[in-house]
Amino acid sequence: MTAAYPFVPALREPEGSPIRELFKYLSDPEMISFAGGYPSAALFDADGIGAASARVLRERPAECLQYGATEGAPALRDALVALMAGRGAAVTREQLLVTSGSQQGFDFLVRALVEPGSVVLVEEPTYSATLQALRLAGAEVRGVPSDRHGMDVDALAAMLADGAVRPRLIYTVPTFANPTGATLSPERRLRLLELAARHQVVLVEDDPYGALSFDGAAPPSLLALCDQVPGARPWLVHLASLSKTLAPGLRIGWMVAAPEIIRRAVIAKQVSDLCTPPWIQLAVTQYLAEGRLCAQVEREIAFYRDKRDRLAEALWQAFGERIRFALPAGGMFLWAALEGVDDAAALLPHAIAEKVLFVPGTGFYAQRRARPAFRLSFAGAAPEQIAEGVARLKRAAARLDAAG
Amino acid sequence: MTAAYPFVPALREPEGSPIRELFKYLSDPEMISFAGGYPSAALFDADGIGAASARVLRERPAECLQYGATEGAPALRDALVALMAGRGAAVTREQLLVTSGSQQGFDFLVRALVEPGSVVLVEEPTYSATLQALRLAGAEVRGVPSDRHGMDVDALAAMLADGAVRPRLIYTVPTFANPTGATLSPERRLRLLELAARHQVVLVEDDPYGALSFDGAAPPSLLALCDQVPGARPWLVHLASLSKTLAPGLRIGWMVAAPEIIRRAVIAKQVSDLCTPPWIQLAVTQYLAEGRLCAQVEREIAFYRDKRDRLAEALWQAFGERIRFALPAGGMFLWAALEGVDDAAALLPHAIAEKVLFVPGTGFYAQRRARPAFRLSFAGAAPEQIAEGVARLKRAAARLDAAG
Repeated sequence: MTAAYPFVPALREPEGSPIRELFKYLSDPEMISFAGGYPSAALFDADGIGAASARVLRERPAECLQYGATEGAPALRDALVALMAGRGAAVTREQLLVTSGSQQGFDFLVRALVEPGSVVLVEEPTYSATLQALRLAGAEVRGVPSDRHGMDVDALAAMLADGAVRPRLIYTVPTFANPTGATLSPERRLRLLELAARHQVVLVEDDPYGALSFDGAAPPSLLALCDQVPGARPWLVHLASLSKTLAPGLRIGWMVAAPEIIRRAVIAKQVSDLCTPPWIQLAVTQYLAEGRLCAQVEREIAFYRDKRDRLAEALWQAFGERIRFALPAGGMFLWAALEGVDDAAALLPHAIAEKVLFVPGTGFYAQRRARPAFRLSFAGAAPEQIAEGVARLKRAAARLDAAG
Repeated sequence: MTAAYPFVPALREPEGSPIRELFKYLSDPEMISFAGGYPSAALFDADGIGAASARVLRERPAECLQYGATEGAPALRDALVALMAGRGAAVTREQLLVTSGSQQGFDFLVRALVEPGSVVLVEEPTYSATLQALRLAGAEVRGVPSDRHGMDVDALAAMLADGAVRPRLIYTVPTFANPTGATLSPERRLRLLELAARHQVVLVEDDPYGALSFDGAAPPSLLALCDQVPGARPWLVHLASLSKTLAPGLRIGWMVAAPEIIRRAVIAKQVSDLCTPPWIQLAVTQYLAEGRLCAQVEREIAFYRDKRDRLAEALWQAFGERIRFALPAGGMFLWAALEGVDDAAALLPHAIAEKVLFVPGTGFYAQRRARPAFRLSFAGAAPEQIAEGVARLKRAAARLDAAG
């Protein structure tokens, strides 16, 4: 007997993430992967995390193992307020909610603000899980074009100017974006805040990568800038995470927003997971208090910068004029296209045959159609694998040329 | 400037949980609380949990701290399959999803199956966070009456028989229910499974308390029984948790369901928190492999049984014929009503004045109106506090009598 479940429309034909579809190849030890968005496990400070967690469990076992406040452990919220101050953003505890990864923060915004048919604007290309969350909520997603300096704010202004719709959210990863690696210019940042304030639209700054800046300081976050733009602050929501700096498996993120928005997010969290594990929250608080994060991020920056350089150099060497990409100034991703390849998805089977992985561009757009660009992550592969991975990519492109 | 956010209808006037509203009184060290649904921290096996987590972090740091599979760590899924087999339920790994607490499993079902206006049937009174999740989703919640033997399945049959609506879910806590402490009789269990199969409705068995059985074995779960009822298995979803046996702060729950449902829940989890912290999953796997859970549950049963007996005895002594309740055979809750009290919420301010807390019944019903019954938890208070807490409750009732 087959059951006919009354699934909601978005889940009748479940569409997985394009990256997940590549997971099955990762178990192949011969594979070199530029696909995943995973940070390098080689740098995890397991000793520091282990010591901090053992200490808080010894000193405060009941607090670690009992249910905790939905808003997050007060001590962690205070520590994150201090961390944000160090990034130039003045925040109070009441404006900050601890989330189980920054993705959960976006999920709460969607629950609080998006109904089936609601219009949401996202820079394109964009993070695929954001598109998936919006699809699940039944949103009507419209893409705002972007270039190597991030979202095209003139295009956004034109979309907002007609006034026909008031979007529920505008979503951007302004610093070292996923998938493009692009960083929004300071002028565009101010313009974007002005647009959010003028049109009274919630602007979501997703900032998991901002701390990983290779070439000097990154521009101030939208959050750090928003007090310069009259009326912008109530409309800005900032999502942050320790996944890309400390460890993703801890699932510690946070949302900074107006207290009215935080209040709704807390209700969404009550029905979702009640609280982020208090033990992990207290361990992270202890870790931050010991001042270990800064050195950890320094190590990551050096490691990823070197790998970015190796990847870029190898790509130029292998493909010369044929490849187009902008060198990312931080983060984990490089967004490239090859002359003569109109659909990067067609390159993928050849790459898999050559034992190298990347993510074709199509999954980063609301409309799934052929895209020439593809995403290469320099975070996961070992430094000494990168040149070989690019050589394989070159052979894959030759195979595609021969097939075409 | 006040921002006018376009919140979804359910969050325009955010309604908190009735239990959360009592939180502010818990910081008063003089207060005796029968209110929270928290297990007793006195019994947490912090040493065992700490040792297991230190070991897996030492042996497999990258696996602990990296992103993990959305479905859950394979080793934990296998361990939970074995745990379910010990509870008489045959389950495969593909039918089991690890969740961040069992509440998250219910949230995923709501996302997969409930749209604004969808009808959902819940036994009443029921767990308040379930009502909150359904309210947030815009469901039309209809209560199925219950008595001391659990859900009134005849009433359910009548509601389903008219065929006017096909509910998206039927929700029950059949064993040591929250808030009533009631346990569904074996005959009603089979009848309930037959109704779900005949009417092709997803039946949710929320089972966080089943392991805490004081007076011999609890009846088999709906999951353990469902293969006896032709056609029932595809319609049954079982939600379970280690929150009430190991520790709530670990946020480890799981869902057992047909693979088609699990597939949708995995997509909901991808957009929600991506994965439950792998480190905690592996620590729990290690803890279970060491065989420590069984002894832990034995200790809890002895502790809670004694406290249940103290509470019941004190209530009979204090109120005699005036109080009505059924002795719960397990779990954490006792559901009582006092003759002459038509609205337990009116008793609460007097109780707070006397420094004792309970939860008035109204928050456990879809329709918030005056209810005579109230919930007393015997899990949180220390054994030696219980008699004093009841004496305070008696004084509170006397105050209410005098005021009325």
